[in-house]
Amino acid sequence: MQAATYQGNATFNVVEGTKTAPNSGEVAVTVGYVGICGTDMHIYHGAMDHRVEVGQVIGHEMAGVINAVGPAALGFEEGDRVVVRPLDYCGDCPACNRGHSHICHNLKFMGIDSPGALQSSWNVKARTLHKLPDHVTLRQGALVEPLAVAVHDVSRARVAPGEDVVVLGGGPIGQLIAAVARADGARVLVSEINPQRREFAEKQGIEVFDPSAGDLVEKVMEWTGDKGADVVFEVAGVMPTVEAMTEVAAVRGRICVVAIHGEAPPVDLFKFFWRELELLGARVYTAEDFERAIELIATGDIDADAYITEEFPLDQIAEAFENLEKNTASIKSLIAVEGAME
Amino acid sequence: MQAATYQGNATFNVVEGTKTAPNSGEVAVTVGYVGICGTDMHIYHGAMDHRVEVGQVIGHEMAGVINAVGPAALGFEEGDRVVVRPLDYCGDCPACNRGHSHICHNLKFMGIDSPGALQSSWNVKARTLHKLPDHVTLRQGALVEPLAVAVHDVSRARVAPGEDVVVLGGGPIGQLIAAVARADGARVLVSEINPQRREFAEKQGIEVFDPSAGDLVEKVMEWTGDKGADVVFEVAGVMPTVEAMTEVAAVRGRICVVAIHGEAPPVDLFKFFWRELELLGARVYTAEDFERAIELIATGDIDADAYITEEFPLDQIAEAFENLEKNTASIKSLIAVEGAME
Repeated sequence: MQAATYQGNATFNVVEGTKTAPNSGEVAVTVGYVGICGTDMHIYHGAMDHRVEVGQVIGHEMAGVINAVGPAALGFEEGDRVVVRPLDYCGDCPACNRGHSHICHNLKFMGIDSPGALQSSWNVKARTLHKLPDHVTLRQGALVEPLAVAVHDVSRARVAPGEDVVVLGGGPIGQLIAAVARADGARVLVSEINPQRREFAEKQGIEVFDPSAGDLVEKVMEWTGDKGADVVFEVAGVMPTVEAMTEVAAVRGRICVVAIHGEAPPVDLFKFFWRELELLGARVYTAEDFERAIELIATGDIDADAYITEEFPLDQIAEAFENLEKNTASIKSLIAVEGAME
Repeated sequence: MQAATYQGNATFNVVEGTKTAPNSGEVAVTVGYVGICGTDMHIYHGAMDHRVEVGQVIGHEMAGVINAVGPAALGFEEGDRVVVRPLDYCGDCPACNRGHSHICHNLKFMGIDSPGALQSSWNVKARTLHKLPDHVTLRQGALVEPLAVAVHDVSRARVAPGEDVVVLGGGPIGQLIAAVARADGARVLVSEINPQRREFAEKQGIEVFDPSAGDLVEKVMEWTGDKGADVVFEVAGVMPTVEAMTEVAAVRGRICVVAIHGEAPPVDLFKFFWRELELLGARVYTAEDFERAIELIATGDIDADAYITEEFPLDQIAEAFENLEKNTASIKSLIAVEGAME
């Protein structure tokens, strides 16, 4: 079997790996497609070398087919088409004990803290699996993980039908948040400076605004009849969006912080007081979010194929990452692995 | 009748005022006691001269007795013992239309944006009134307004029985938040550097910590068995507490911002993401919060008298404000006005 290993310095080797039998409670999954996410780009750039060893297989957005079932991996059989929820929690910390295992104090993220999906066959704990309906393709299935992120964010922000939602940043996750919020009945506006990303959102029928060409606060107030946005998603992680998030929010507005902020930015706490705003951090997803993401694709509420803008075979992984470096129109790049040939 | 008017430059004049009959929808209240709050101190220092005119009567924490009822002021009669909820809302903005009139876009705060309680008789809209039970004294009633702030904060933060609550700052509002959270069944720890305020909290049976003498984060983790605080109240409004608020919070912890932040401080948004924290701005109170505050005093769950540390007659208002400038042991100073003689 083949495996792509991270070598440091923006380099992967595609090597002949050794398939091992699944341990107790595990299954082996023939990997079909793997999506490349922003975190994978950070790994590629060496920014996560403190967590990812040289020689490690990365990748965590995937869909595949079970090829072997280990002892005590109940409920699954060879041939099951599945996606992996790549969270390995301890089960015995204050977060796990209170039902928040997805943000376990000792969480290991599979594909970062342990081997990932960029290999022909991936051994994973059966408890991480979700089955795909027959009519959802493995290619579409590779979108379940990032879509589950968006489902989680929209759920954390308690988006309700008819609410006005502003998404600050139209990258892959911003686009998916916009789509999920709309599927939940909200009016959605995406603020994004990249014209290709605006064009992409518009193709999905989402209203867009270019904050470099006009005043976003004015736009949102006009768009909401001076009320402001009921929900704001901060997905860009830059100072202008941190400033905008409090400016565009309605009284009692909810602001969901999705972006990862390496440094603590100034936040207008006076506005939080004055308008009784709410800030909600959101990280990864729960099992329910994965099921909802699968359902949204299965029903066609989210057109998964539309978000897949590039596809590369595993032996062209270098080209796939190089392309993402410069392709400002990309939404989601997939790597086709062994199971994609099925 | 007497009235204390703000003259700028930390000066009040006590003058002979003119009693006017209440307009339609209004009542006239003989003022018994008026509490001095942090906002009054800001006014005294000239920091709110953009909102408070020279010659204005201030004061908004009070209890008194109705001495005249204007036309169409239904449900009230002479002799009713009342407190005023000093919020004058427009009734027709996006906030009012959505049931959040307490944070109306055009809110006028009585005693700041319009005449206040530091006068023998105060004409107010009947819709601002709450009746006091017979056995609650007017002196105790003057504590209803700040207690309603604390009730609102605890309610916004959804404090539940058995939860671990950390209050950052043991000033008057921090002390009342601690007392309300405990009345709601929470375990409470107040972090405060002022030894007199720590001593005061301890007298009320509240656990305290001196963050200048030890590591607050270590203390909270030890106090909560490494879980962190379920709810944190940021009541001090200084950088060390803004830093601490994210450090001491548990996974999915709620942080209620009560303090007023003149400048946007750096906030650790990464922690919000990583632990899925929640930040809740809280401002003033609703009618329900006022009713709950009255109930907490009426039942004795909150010993209102304990929080009243000084009392001055109206003609010694200068001494009252001067005392607050230097008296670091003060929790709540009252001004006794005409109705206090009854």
